[in-house]
Amino acid sequence: MATLEDLGVSAFINIVGAFAFLILFAVLRIQPINDRVYFPKWYITGGRNSPRVRGRGVGKFVNLNLRTYFTFLNWMPGALRMSESEIIQHAGLDSAVYLRIYILGLKIFVPITVLVLLVLIPVNVSGGTLLNLKKKIMYSDIDKLSISNVNAGSQRFFIHLLMAYLFTLWTCYILYKEYDNVAFMRLHFLASQNRCVDQFTVVVRNVPHVSGHSISESVEQFFHRNHPDHYLGHQAVYNANKFAKLVRQKERLQNWLDYNQLKFERHPEKRPTTKRGFLGLCGERVDAINYYRERISELDEKIAYERQRILKDPKAIMPVAFVTFDSRWGAAVCAQTQQSKNPTKWLTDWAPEPRDVYWENLPIPFVSLSIRRLIISIAVFALVFFYMIPIAFVQSLANLEGLEKVAPFLRPVIEIKVIKSFLQGFLPGLALKVFLYILPTVLMIMSKVEGYLSLSSLERKAAAKYYYFMLVNVFLGSIITGTAFEQLYSFIHQPPTQIPITIGVSIPMKATFFMTYIMVDGWAGIASEILRLKPLVIYHLKNMFIVKTERDREKAMDPGSIDLPENLPSLQLYFLLGLVYAVVTPVLLPFILVFFAFAFLVYRHQIINVYNQEYESAGAFWPHVHGRIIASLLIAQLLLLGLLSTKKAANSTPLLIILPILTIWFHKYCKSRFEPAFRKCPLEEAMEKDIMEKASEPNLNLKAYLADAYLHPIFHSFDEEEEKIEVRVDKGQSHIPSPTRSEISSESPPHYVYHYEFEP
Amino acid sequence: MATLEDLGVSAFINIVGAFAFLILFAVLRIQPINDRVYFPKWYITGGRNSPRVRGRGVGKFVNLNLRTYFTFLNWMPGALRMSESEIIQHAGLDSAVYLRIYILGLKIFVPITVLVLLVLIPVNVSGGTLLNLKKKIMYSDIDKLSISNVNAGSQRFFIHLLMAYLFTLWTCYILYKEYDNVAFMRLHFLASQNRCVDQFTVVVRNVPHVSGHSISESVEQFFHRNHPDHYLGHQAVYNANKFAKLVRQKERLQNWLDYNQLKFERHPEKRPTTKRGFLGLCGERVDAINYYRERISELDEKIAYERQRILKDPKAIMPVAFVTFDSRWGAAVCAQTQQSKNPTKWLTDWAPEPRDVYWENLPIPFVSLSIRRLIISIAVFALVFFYMIPIAFVQSLANLEGLEKVAPFLRPVIEIKVIKSFLQGFLPGLALKVFLYILPTVLMIMSKVEGYLSLSSLERKAAAKYYYFMLVNVFLGSIITGTAFEQLYSFIHQPPTQIPITIGVSIPMKATFFMTYIMVDGWAGIASEILRLKPLVIYHLKNMFIVKTERDREKAMDPGSIDLPENLPSLQLYFLLGLVYAVVTPVLLPFILVFFAFAFLVYRHQIINVYNQEYESAGAFWPHVHGRIIASLLIAQLLLLGLLSTKKAANSTPLLIILPILTIWFHKYCKSRFEPAFRKCPLEEAMEKDIMEKASEPNLNLKAYLADAYLHPIFHSFDEEEEKIEVRVDKGQSHIPSPTRSEISSESPPHYVYHYEFEP
Repeated sequence: MATLEDLGVSAFINIVGAFAFLILFAVLRIQPINDRVYFPKWYITGGRNSPRVRGRGVGKFVNLNLRTYFTFLNWMPGALRMSESEIIQHAGLDSAVYLRIYILGLKIFVPITVLVLLVLIPVNVSGGTLLNLKKKIMYSDIDKLSISNVNAGSQRFFIHLLMAYLFTLWTCYILYKEYDNVAFMRLHFLASQNRCVDQFTVVVRNVPHVSGHSISESVEQFFHRNHPDHYLGHQAVYNANKFAKLVRQKERLQNWLDYNQLKFERHPEKRPTTKRGFLGLCGERVDAINYYRERISELDEKIAYERQRILKDPKAIMPVAFVTFDSRWGAAVCAQTQQSKNPTKWLTDWAPEPRDVYWENLPIPFVSLSIRRLIISIAVFALVFFYMIPIAFVQSLANLEGLEKVAPFLRPVIEIKVIKSFLQGFLPGLALKVFLYILPTVLMIMSKVEGYLSLSSLERKAAAKYYYFMLVNVFLGSIITGTAFEQLYSFIHQPPTQIPITIGVSIPMKATFFMTYIMVDGWAGIASEILRLKPLVIYHLKNMFIVKTERDREKAMDPGSIDLPENLPSLQLYFLLGLVYAVVTPVLLPFILVFFAFAFLVYRHQIINVYNQEYESAGAFWPHVHGRIIASLLIAQLLLLGLLSTKKAANSTPLLIILPILTIWFHKYCKSRFEPAFRKCPLEEAMEKDIMEKASEPNLNLKAYLADAYLHPIFHSFDEEEEKIEVRVDKGQSHIPSPTRSEISSESPPHYVYHYEFEP
Repeated sequence: MATLEDLGVSAFINIVGAFAFLILFAVLRIQPINDRVYFPKWYITGGRNSPRVRGRGVGKFVNLNLRTYFTFLNWMPGALRMSESEIIQHAGLDSAVYLRIYILGLKIFVPITVLVLLVLIPVNVSGGTLLNLKKKIMYSDIDKLSISNVNAGSQRFFIHLLMAYLFTLWTCYILYKEYDNVAFMRLHFLASQNRCVDQFTVVVRNVPHVSGHSISESVEQFFHRNHPDHYLGHQAVYNANKFAKLVRQKERLQNWLDYNQLKFERHPEKRPTTKRGFLGLCGERVDAINYYRERISELDEKIAYERQRILKDPKAIMPVAFVTFDSRWGAAVCAQTQQSKNPTKWLTDWAPEPRDVYWENLPIPFVSLSIRRLIISIAVFALVFFYMIPIAFVQSLANLEGLEKVAPFLRPVIEIKVIKSFLQGFLPGLALKVFLYILPTVLMIMSKVEGYLSLSSLERKAAAKYYYFMLVNVFLGSIITGTAFEQLYSFIHQPPTQIPITIGVSIPMKATFFMTYIMVDGWAGIASEILRLKPLVIYHLKNMFIVKTERDREKAMDPGSIDLPENLPSLQLYFLLGLVYAVVTPVLLPFILVFFAFAFLVYRHQIINVYNQEYESAGAFWPHVHGRIIASLLIAQLLLLGLLSTKKAANSTPLLIILPILTIWFHKYCKSRFEPAFRKCPLEEAMEKDIMEKASEPNLNLKAYLADAYLHPIFHSFDEEEEKIEVRVDKGQSHIPSPTRSEISSESPPHYVYHYEFEP
């Protein structure tokens, strides 16, 4: 086990690493050539069109103003300058609520840290077991500050007990306040939102097939009958897989055409050519521009035909529809009630906003959905608990002998000693690395198979799966494997129910490991997040090789959303560590505090300058965050119970059992108190907005506004302008654009863009 | 352990007992004097006003027609003569669905029994372990037919495994069909029901106090605003405790007055007198009729005053209201949606039908409700697991020495040897008997404290608690205490996770115990149910001493509802026994079959002739029945897993683990497929009925119909006729009576009453 000196060395290395990342970031950030990597959000919102620091010649790519190099930490105050309401306007509520998780961490752990430093550490140090005894197991210096240092059977454990109570109460109090706050923010956000199509829309699934009626007719009839006063219309969902393929094909060709035209513009002396055959590598050589034009017009015909086919063929309509209502009240009623006598038909739910819809999952029938959930939950269980088995299998295949057998020509290379030892050390780890790298993708695919309707819920479900994985394999895995080496003997001779006690006992011994983990993953890891090394490299590579047109450049620049499926679980792991170690090894807490504060700054900066949320779920992930912190509290309490029961502080056990019961009750109470705000829309709210809108815009043509909001995105993807107008003219209605939220946010608030212009 | 002979003796005794009860029943039933005990339902529905077999003189009380004595079993075909739809009309859907539980038992266990008799028992008998080995533990002959008779490690266990699969599949199939059927019956019943006030009414709880507004104003305003198109009115709930007390007082006096007036009519020569003082025992002697008249008129004034006070005082209005809508659609929408931004305010739910409301629980606020649930769940846990502790304590106090100390004057009596030994054997048992006797009442009080709104849900919750008690103390308790005597040594040396295995192993040894249990509780117990010995005695006692007026006689005759909180759990215990022993000791199954068939007949007879349901929940308890049978399946599977793992049939374990997973999935599927039919009202249904009603009765005055449907029952309880008319005249609306379901059922279908007249 690590001593204080080892820990100091580790801390030094990680702090130096983090600073190196920060300095590198400071240098790279102000180079005009990297501007699109470090400030893409401003390009997307329209706040910027080109790098601000502009020079000539080399200055176009490299920043020659030396003064800017010395202020390399000034992004930190910059990140704090924007207020929360500005962040909500700039990046959406999801981002603002995400940042509140870090604030929540600070709010919970700052007072706890103060308390443990003042009370618990002195109690532990003066406990003095380890000063007197030499045990079989080596203890580190850190243990002098932990609960291990207190004599078994000591009355001091009542102080630990009291602390456990105080920490639980404090955590619950802060959680309650924060849940209240986030629920209020969400309701306020939804209330102050401009008119959105999703407020008026309900998605209905499992529309039954009635012979002699098309799906559209059934939907029309059903809602006309059962919601006569509020039903407005519906939007069918088409099975457009083939169409999507054609559109993708056309886009690719269009790109090539653009590229060749640009090339021709730059070098008008030479018309570009290409070959007709496979991938342009073989076949007759032809004029490229003409060739692509030809092929595009061919495709256009096909697409138009396919489009007509889909729109006319009743079989292309899936048994799903987006049903729109003439008021928010009508939509709220339809989304929350059961429609049909058969509860598996006509399932209604809130429509996600159009950007958020995961179209592929819409037509899954009820029975299939239920079977998919079963299969995926078994698969997740297997993945979490047995993931080492296939990896060990791959590792056993991927050793050197196996490699030599498969590829004998590599033998001379492999037999070189340096390479051999490198490979032998490297190959077994590679399988694990590859697995861990693709794990989030695998989990996301699993969530997709489960059949959730919106991207936001897919991300939340993937995050939940990742959390289980982290909990079992990072948290419990580190503790049990560690003890398996140290206490193997006592371990295999205990019955299975003793495991919680064993874990509880070995918790204090693992404190230094987790401290190092926090420094590597939390400190240096977060510093590398701000550096964005991978996107930087990829962007420049793409810029060099792939980017042909302005559209390509925008694609290469796209920063994507915050990676919630990965970030939420790792954040929740820090809460778990903090709560588990708060009573046991309090010196771990300052490490966590540093993480929360630093990560808060970094992510605030990233949200302002980099990430661009694809959709807005209005903080829908908060109940999950809350629930997992409660779970962490429960785990911490059970492990403390296990630990204390071995410390002969047995009379404290009944006192500790009360804690989990109260915590579970608190969770249930919070669930019924706040969760409906995240799942349902209160009628009071809907009615309020309806009345306000009627007063302010009495002549609003809602039908036109909602007309094709939920058209499959591929129908929008090209010829957008003409098509839309055409559709509207067809319906003989006035032209009112139907903006999605992204358009709103990009149009509306320009004031802070300027006031933020000074920053870097 | 019992041998086959012991079992035969026990069976003989119980069968004789059951027959004795049946013959006694046959004799007592046809005595005119008992007619009101054995056929009260016909008196209540108005099918009978006096005993049918009427003689003169002694014949008024005793049946002298000898011929009727010989047909003592003819109630059985009589019980089967009524069809299910007639039962629904006669006794309500609850009763019909209750009977279906027995049918379900027969449907599940008849094919299983046939299969085990043909396949499993031959396999077990030819297994032959116990024929060869003498074990430490004594085995009974029954064990030759059970799984214990198969050699450890035998391949024959795969037959048991296959059977476990077949039984699970068959049970699930039948459960699915039955759930489907009951859900259909419920929907059909609700759809074909006449107009009921509860279809238009929603109960809203936690109405917030707004300063300057009364509760009524708040409700009016809120629903006018948020349900403008459908809101009709609301009925406030008054805090009428004092009023109820006065009314009860008046009723008592009224009864005395009636009694004295009757007495005076019979003996006109002597005016009855009474004393003014305490309980009529002391004080001045006065004329009774005048005295009671005087006191009643005094009370009338008080009541009128109190009534005015309650109706005027805004503080007497509780923060609860029954809100009525102009259509079923409006009520369905309001009941299923969230009203307010704060999910703990304006909680709406379906109103139970007026007879079913438990008024005392209406005004409990949300936080208090949540705390009550926590406390009660802890209390139930303690009651289930530690109920022996207080009983042992009471027993230790209630021994003879303690008794002698408390009451020294009893010493000479106690010291008599016969009495002493009787008391020593009797007293310790008494505490337990008393506890078990009051247990259902205690559980019902607990459910009331939990704050459920309707009598039907109170009964369901009490039944759930009783089921946990039975499961732990009757099922597991019998098995573990049994083995504690037999296998104490091996027991205390096993870690706690071994307990399921230990239980699984001792399950076959307990088969004879449960067979005896089934015969005592299931056969003889059910026969005593039909005899109604307790109500018979109580009725005659009351008739002799208390009954003064016709109203008293009706009260004494009242049979009440089927005792669901006690009957459902014991029924579910039989399902558990059947499923657990189906694979392990198949000879138990015929005993269970006899129980189901016999109990079905008896309860069918009782429902037709005796019980009178207080309310109608339209089979709302079915999801609980279904859920508990699924739980029984899971328990059976786990115990089989434990049993087989000790039989060195270890390679079967993975195959068995699939079963519980599939069962849980099946349960989840059924839950989402059918449960909404029991919890929610589909809009399609509501709209259909609305449209039909509008077509058939276009001029219906709903407001008048709903006017005082949910008036607190005590306001109805006297002066009913004048008051009601008065209220209606006040509102200046046409007189439309608002019948509750009981009135409907008593008025409408007289045809089968006649056709059933021939029966006994």
